[in-house]
Amino acid sequence: MKYAVVGAGAVGSYYGAKLARSGGDCDVHFLMRSDLEAVRKNGLTIRSKDDGDFHLENVNAHGSTEEIGACDVVLIALKTTANDALPQLIPPLLKNDTILLTLQNGLGNEEFLARHFGAERVLGGLCFVCLNRVAQGVVEHFGHGTLSIGEFHGPPQPRTLRIVEDFQRSGIEAKAVQNLITERWRKLVWNIPFNGLGIAARANVEEVLRDENLHASTRDLMRETIEVAARCGHAIPLDFIDFQIARSWPMGPYRSSSQIDFENGREVEVESIWGEPYRQAVAAGANAPRLEMLYFLIKHLVAKK
Amino acid sequence: MKYAVVGAGAVGSYYGAKLARSGGDCDVHFLMRSDLEAVRKNGLTIRSKDDGDFHLENVNAHGSTEEIGACDVVLIALKTTANDALPQLIPPLLKNDTILLTLQNGLGNEEFLARHFGAERVLGGLCFVCLNRVAQGVVEHFGHGTLSIGEFHGPPQPRTLRIVEDFQRSGIEAKAVQNLITERWRKLVWNIPFNGLGIAARANVEEVLRDENLHASTRDLMRETIEVAARCGHAIPLDFIDFQIARSWPMGPYRSSSQIDFENGREVEVESIWGEPYRQAVAAGANAPRLEMLYFLIKHLVAKK
Repeated sequence: MKYAVVGAGAVGSYYGAKLARSGGDCDVHFLMRSDLEAVRKNGLTIRSKDDGDFHLENVNAHGSTEEIGACDVVLIALKTTANDALPQLIPPLLKNDTILLTLQNGLGNEEFLARHFGAERVLGGLCFVCLNRVAQGVVEHFGHGTLSIGEFHGPPQPRTLRIVEDFQRSGIEAKAVQNLITERWRKLVWNIPFNGLGIAARANVEEVLRDENLHASTRDLMRETIEVAARCGHAIPLDFIDFQIARSWPMGPYRSSSQIDFENGREVEVESIWGEPYRQAVAAGANAPRLEMLYFLIKHLVAKK
Repeated sequence: MKYAVVGAGAVGSYYGAKLARSGGDCDVHFLMRSDLEAVRKNGLTIRSKDDGDFHLENVNAHGSTEEIGACDVVLIALKTTANDALPQLIPPLLKNDTILLTLQNGLGNEEFLARHFGAERVLGGLCFVCLNRVAQGVVEHFGHGTLSIGEFHGPPQPRTLRIVEDFQRSGIEAKAVQNLITERWRKLVWNIPFNGLGIAARANVEEVLRDENLHASTRDLMRETIEVAARCGHAIPLDFIDFQIARSWPMGPYRSSSQIDFENGREVEVESIWGEPYRQAVAAGANAPRLEMLYFLIKHLVAKK
C-alpha cells in the first residue's frame, strides 16, 4: 500500500512515521513544506516516554504531491484552517480508488473532501493522542495514541479494515468504528471545553480541572455538546462526561493543540472545533449558550491576534 | 456640609473636585495615598472635552481619616476589591448622623457598609460617567457624568435631596432615585457585558458592538441580567437593552475601567460586578449560563495575572 501524508505536523509525522517504520507493505511518502530540508537531512524523530523514542533515518520527504504521484491512501493531517489548499494539493495523488483518510480535528472535513473529490473515497480517523511538534522533524508524544477509523458513510468496509490493520501492525492501537460522525461528536465532547478554555481562560487541562468553576463549565459544555449531538442524530450517554473527566486528570498540565497554537500566534482551528458544531446546534434548534459564547469569544480573540 | 472622599481614584477625584469647586456649603476633604504629595503640590486637574478642563489649586488632601475627622457625608469611591480596608478607615469620620454614600460599582457594597456601620446611614450613588485617571491628580473625563443617588432602604429622604442638590450646584447632573438596588441592576445590564467582554474578549465598546457575535452575546447577557434582576424583585423592561446599546455606540473605542484595570495588571472588581450578581442568580434559581461562564472565565483570568 502506498501512503501519502499531506500535512506533516505533529499528527501526520507521528502516524506516518509509525507506518513507515513498520515497513513491509507500507510505502509512506510525506508532503513537507517548512521541514522538508531538515527531514531529508536528519529524518524524523518521535520522542515518547511511554513507548520509547524512535528515529526514522530515511524518510520519503517530498516538496510537492506531483513528486509523490498516485497513492492508495492519502492521510490528511493538514490543519483545517488550510483546507482551502486541498483542492490544489490532492489531485496528483489520486487514482480511481484512492482513499482520502482525514485525521483532522472537528466537524466538516469529511464533507469538504466529499464535495471536492467524491464521498465514496472519504474516510475519517480520530486521533486520541497527546503530541507536540517540538522542532523541525521532531515530535514529542505524551501519551495515548488510539486511532479510530471509519467510513464517511456507512459501516466499515474491507478497505477500512485493511487500513486499520496497517496501523495495528505499526504499533498503533487502531480500530474501525461503526459511525464516524458519532465518534467525531464524542471527541468534540473533550475538545470543545478543553481546547476552548485553553484559549479563553489560558488554562491547561490540570488548571481547568482544579478550578472548580472552570471544571463545572467544562461539564456543562460537555453536556451541551452531547445535547447538540443528540439533536443531530448522534446518541452519546451522559455518563461519557465522567469518563472524559476521569481520563483527563492523568494528562496533568497538558496544553491542547489549540491552546499552544493560540499562545504561539499560529492559526487556530476555530471553525472545525467550535464554529461547525455551533452552526449545527443552531440548525438543529438546540440550546447551547456556553458553546455559543465560547465560540464567539475564541473567534474574536483569534482574529485579534 | 463637610464631605470626605475615601478613595480618590478617577471617580472620587472627579466628583469630589466638582463639589469642592462649587464652594459655598461644601467643605471637601480627600483621603489620598499614592497621589497625596502630587495633589498637595499641584492640586487636582479634570480634563474634559465636553465640559472644559478645570484645575483645583488648593485641595484638602489628607493622609489619614483621623486627620480629616468627623464629617456629614463620606463619599466612598474606593475600589470594591479594597472594601476590607473600610472597617479601619471609616470610624474616624463618623458622628451620629454621618452619611455613608458609596459610589462604588456593582452589588454588595451597601450591604457591606450596613453590616459594619448600620444600614440607617447608608446611601448609594450610581455614576454614569466615562473617566480615566491618567496621572497623579489628573483625571480625564470622556463624557456623561450623571449621578443617581438613593437610600439603601426606602425612598429618598430630605437628606438624600440635600446631597443631590449639593451635586447639582456643583454642575453634576444628579438626581434622587426611588429604588437604589433596582438602579444598581440597571447599571449592571451595561457593566456585566461590556466590562466582561472587555476582559474575556479584550474588546473595547466599539469592537464589541461591531463584532456581530459579541454584539449578540452582549444582548443575551443583558437579557440574562434583566431576568436575574426580575427574580430578585427588580423589574427592568426588556426594551432597556436597545436603549443601552444605543447609548453605547457614541462611546466609540472606550475601554471600561475593568478592561483597563485588567490590561494594566491592576485589581479588577470581579466580585461586585459578576460574582455577586451570579450568586444572587443562583440563590433566586435563575438560569444565567452566559453570566456564569463570563464570571468563571474572568475570575480565572484575573487570578492568573
